[in-house]
Order: sequence, then C-alpha cells, then structure tokens
Amino acid sequence: MATITIVGAGMMGSAMCFPASDNRHEIRLVGTPYDRAVIDRIKADGYHPKLQLALPNGVRGYQIEELPAALEGCDLLVSGVPSFGIDWFAEAVLSAIPDSLKVLSLTKGLEMEADGALLPISQAYARKVAAGRKLSINSIGGPCISTELCARQHTTVALCGDEPETLAWIKSLLATPYYHINLTTDVAGIECAVALKNAYAVGVSLAIGLADTQGVPLCNPQASLFGQAVREMLALTRMLGGHTDAVIYATSDLYVTINGGRNRKLGELLGQGDTYQEAMRKLSGVTLESISIITRAAEYVRRREQKGDNCRRLFPLLMHLDEIINQGAQVNIPWDAFGRH
Amino acid sequence: MATITIVGAGMMGSAMCFPASDNRHEIRLVGTPYDRAVIDRIKADGYHPKLQLALPNGVRGYQIEELPAALEGCDLLVSGVPSFGIDWFAEAVLSAIPDSLKVLSLTKGLEMEADGALLPISQAYARKVAAGRKLSINSIGGPCISTELCARQHTTVALCGDEPETLAWIKSLLATPYYHINLTTDVAGIECAVALKNAYAVGVSLAIGLADTQGVPLCNPQASLFGQAVREMLALTRMLGGHTDAVIYATSDLYVTINGGRNRKLGELLGQGDTYQEAMRKLSGVTLESISIITRAAEYVRRREQKGDNCRRLFPLLMHLDEIINQGAQVNIPWDAFGRH
Repeated sequence: MATITIVGAGMMGSAMCFPASDNRHEIRLVGTPYDRAVIDRIKADGYHPKLQLALPNGVRGYQIEELPAALEGCDLLVSGVPSFGIDWFAEAVLSAIPDSLKVLSLTKGLEMEADGALLPISQAYARKVAAGRKLSINSIGGPCISTELCARQHTTVALCGDEPETLAWIKSLLATPYYHINLTTDVAGIECAVALKNAYAVGVSLAIGLADTQGVPLCNPQASLFGQAVREMLALTRMLGGHTDAVIYATSDLYVTINGGRNRKLGELLGQGDTYQEAMRKLSGVTLESISIITRAAEYVRRREQKGDNCRRLFPLLMHLDEIINQGAQVNIPWDAFGRH
Repeated sequence: MATITIVGAGMMGSAMCFPASDNRHEIRLVGTPYDRAVIDRIKADGYHPKLQLALPNGVRGYQIEELPAALEGCDLLVSGVPSFGIDWFAEAVLSAIPDSLKVLSLTKGLEMEADGALLPISQAYARKVAAGRKLSINSIGGPCISTELCARQHTTVALCGDEPETLAWIKSLLATPYYHINLTTDVAGIECAVALKNAYAVGVSLAIGLADTQGVPLCNPQASLFGQAVREMLALTRMLGGHTDAVIYATSDLYVTINGGRNRKLGELLGQGDTYQEAMRKLSGVTLESISIITRAAEYVRRREQKGDNCRRLFPLLMHLDEIINQGAQVNIPWDAFGRH
C-alpha cells in the first residue's frame, strides 16, 4: 500500500482515484483554488459533484491550503490540473516537493517556448522550476474517458517518462484488471499525440457539420479528413522528436474524441457554417484545449517556415483550422492539398 | 478522352464510372458472370439496380462474352471484381490482353501462396498469369464508400504501383475536383492496409456489441481495440514490406468501416454473444472479405512462428478473431496482451 496525492479534483484527476483505490492505496485528493466546492462536498460525504458519484474507499479530500499535510509522507504525486494550470502547478506544488518525490502528470498539451520551440508539458515543467532541480515527471496519455474509468471499463493508456524503472513502479501502483498501462520512453511522441488529437478532432468534425447541413452522412469526406489528420500528426510528431508508433495512441484517441464531447461539437458547428465566435457563443465559452493546441502548433509551423524549413505545405488542415479560429475564415476545406509530403 | 474498360459491375467497379465520366472518357462496363442481370438492365435504360441510380453519360454495358469488343482499343483496364474473383479475372481477362495495356485493380485482399507468403493482390496476379509476362498492375486503396463516390462527395485514395509515370497517367484519367488521388510506390503498404482494415473493423466492433449488451457506450474499450488494431496493422504491414505511412490509409479506412456495414455488424453480433455460426446466419450468409483476411493473416502468423519467428505475441487481437471464427471460441478479449512489442 502506498500513499498517492492527486492535485486537481477535476474529472481526470478524480477518476484516477478508482484504479488507485482498487489497489488499496491511501489517496489524498487535493483541490486547486477552482475546486473548493468540490472538495467541500467530498469532505462532507465523499460524493464528487462533477463525476456525480461517490468516490471509492481510501480517498480523503484536501483544500489547497492543506497541501503540506497532503504531501507529508506521500509516495507519488499526481497532477490532474488542466493545461492552463501548469504554471500554477509548478509554482504552488512542484516548488513544495523534494526532487525525490516522483510525479505523474495527466495534463494534455504542448507549451510554446519564447524561442518558438513546442514542448510536451512534462518537459516544459523543467523550465518552470528552479534551475538545477532534477524532478522525475512522468505522464500518461491515450484514450481515456474519465467517467468510463470510474465505471471500471477496460482502458489502455501509455505511461511515458525517461526512467524505465520509475515507469514500472508507477504502473505497479495504478494498473488494475481494467486499467491497462503500457510503458514507453517516447515522451515527445505520446504527449504530442494526445495533445494534437484534440486539435484534429475539430478538423474531422467539420465534415460531421457539413453532413448535418446536407442531410447525408459524408463518410468519405470524414475519412479523408481523418487520414489527413493522421498524416499531419505523424509529421508533427516526427518534427518534435517523437516515434512513429505514437500514432497508435494518436489515432485511437482521435477516434474516441470524435465520438463525442466539446471538440467534436465545435468542429460540427463550424462545419454547419458558424463562425468561430458564433460557435463559441453556443458552447457558452467553455475552455477547449484544442484552441490553444491549434494556435500554438500553427505558430510553430510558421516560425519553422520563417527559419527556412519548407514545412507549411505538410499541414494544410492545421493551417486552415488556425485561419478559422484566429483569422475569422469560413470553412473551406483544402481537399486538394491533402496528401502532400 | 480515353477509353476505359471496367470489368466487374459491382458497387465499386460501377462507382468508378462517375469520376471517369466527369472526365469525359468513353466507359465500357463489363459484367462478370454474376452481373448478368445488372448488365441487362444497364443495356436497357442505363440504370444500375444495385447502386439504385442511373449511370452517367458515356457508359455502355457489356456482357462477359462481349469482352473482346469491350477491350478493343481501350486505354486502361479496371478490375472491379471482388477478392474471390481474382483467379477468374486472371484466367478470363488478363489472359486476353496485351502486356502493354495498363491495369488498375480495385480489389482488396491478401493472397496466400503455397509457401505461406502473404501477397497483395496486384502482386499475386503475376503468379497467376503465364510466366514471362510483364503486366503493369496498379491498385487503388483507401477509404471510399462507393455510393458516396457516385454522389461526388470528396474522397481521398492512394493509387499505388511500381511505375511513377504510369501512376501519374492513371491519376490524370480519374482525378476530379471531388476524387482526390495520392500516388505512392508502397504497394505492400497500401494493399495490406486496405485488406487488414476489414479484419480489424470486426475486432473494434466487438466492443460495440458488448456495449449494446451492457447498455452503456464503452468508448474506452472501443478505443483500446482501435489502438491495438493500429498496432497490429503496423506490425503486419512492416512484416510484409510495407511502409509505416500506409497507416494513414489503414486508420482512416478502419474509421469509416467501423462506422457501418457488414463487417461492423459481424463484430457487433459476436460482441453481443453470438457464435460465429449464429452471427453468419443472421447476416444470411453474405460474403465477408474480413473472414478470409483474418483466416489468412492468422495462418501467416502461425507459419512464421513455426519457422522460428516469435511474432505471435504481437497479434493477440488477430489470433482471438481467428479463434472466434475458425475454432468456435466465445468473445473473451485479451486486454492484457495488448501493447506488446
């Protein structure tokens, strides 16, 4: 039995309580400043109001000011903060732990550095903490809908990091008969895959919106967009130093992300003819990680182009998504540009 | 304007009349012995009873005994026969043409040779015709639902063959503003991808059947199966000498094949608990290319294993599908075996 401290009581961080509890660990679920009401309720009766279910045995809620107590004697620190919370996590949490405490990040995203480099979040943390620190930050990616993890449905994810022994140890803590964990040192590949799939789920869903408008299924256009999404994810993953096999997680996560949720809804509304502003109004201003991924990845491509890398031609779908979101363009899918390499 | 002779008046062969007609070619659609009634109707009033629409301008129907007239002066021969018809096509059609007539095959499948080798159909033809012949057999793969091609919806496919100039010429005949053709010399990769996706569509759909039974969506299990399907397709494509990038067509074609159709239905019925025999009874004995692909690919893996290649561990999903179909096994997905490499 180990003690696992999870910071971030959103859907994904909280869902991790289930495999952790089934392995009989002590779990300390610490809310961010945004999770105050959630933690109050968990403290009162163990019910998670966003997941809409009772948390399992062995979980205790902590408010953020109780972080020192939640960290005391803990074996593994898990970050369940969303991508816009990583600066806060570095400052408020990573600064309070010793280098010896292993960290597992569930956050999906890509950070852009001042020099235009695009970094997986687990690597970006190294630049956000004090110089000279040697933190072990590992991460999990792959298709995992949090509510299905809570329901103990079979789920296969990739756990990545630089140290194979640490990965094996984290797997021993969290793997269950339904939560299947594969290990890889391909950090760039896995983090890139899981970040990009949100962007491209919007892209494929454009055809779902077009189909709504035309009253026909449009399977071929959807598949054409899916194929171009895979082509661009492969190209970007390779440019960022990831391995081709990360496409296994990129595609399966893309598949499940198109199946439902807010990124699909955004693509569908855009495909139906809404401008980005109209679509976001209908989505009542939800925060979509796809928007920052599209914006950053497109900016990365433009900067590489400025430096003489003729790579823009490889990303017609990404650049069109960026035009729609950041330049007010209407949907006009560049079908003929698909397939260039 | 060219003259294009299409042999096989099934869905896919006949659908090719649309881009060919939009490019103003003369099109001769020749029925196999199974297409007699279809050709009779086309001769009478140009209506295709299986596609349920009128064929476009420039298409004339021919019965198989009129093949010599249909081949006279033709520039490109297209094969639209299903995979179980390729021996017939080699004997009845390829034997009647000069080596100089370029061939385009639309057939999806993998042929097993006596020595246990698994060959893409366009390469298998070389062993079915008289020794010493130098036929140029090219093929098209990728996600393309025939009825949507007839409706002129955007579709992106890969045209593969050994001669880049021939590929460019065939593309010039068939590409339209909605039918987008990418060229590649990766014959093994593309043919393997489009054949295997039928097999794995059954595999992913097992979770759709399980979900029906449980009354919940099971997105994570579906995505886990999708990821394993991609992993196995990549491994088998590499073993057969294909390029990794064929995964672009394998995944997008898998995506659209799971969306509907008979392979999905088979997987769904099996996932609901039917035996293979019960499922096939409900499907009233339709011919499914997935069955022969699963059977042949599993046999290929077993033979490689017998020859000392420890590759069986890479294909737990394929081997389970083979157990279900050929050994009467009940569905019992080997989740823990997924991810091995």
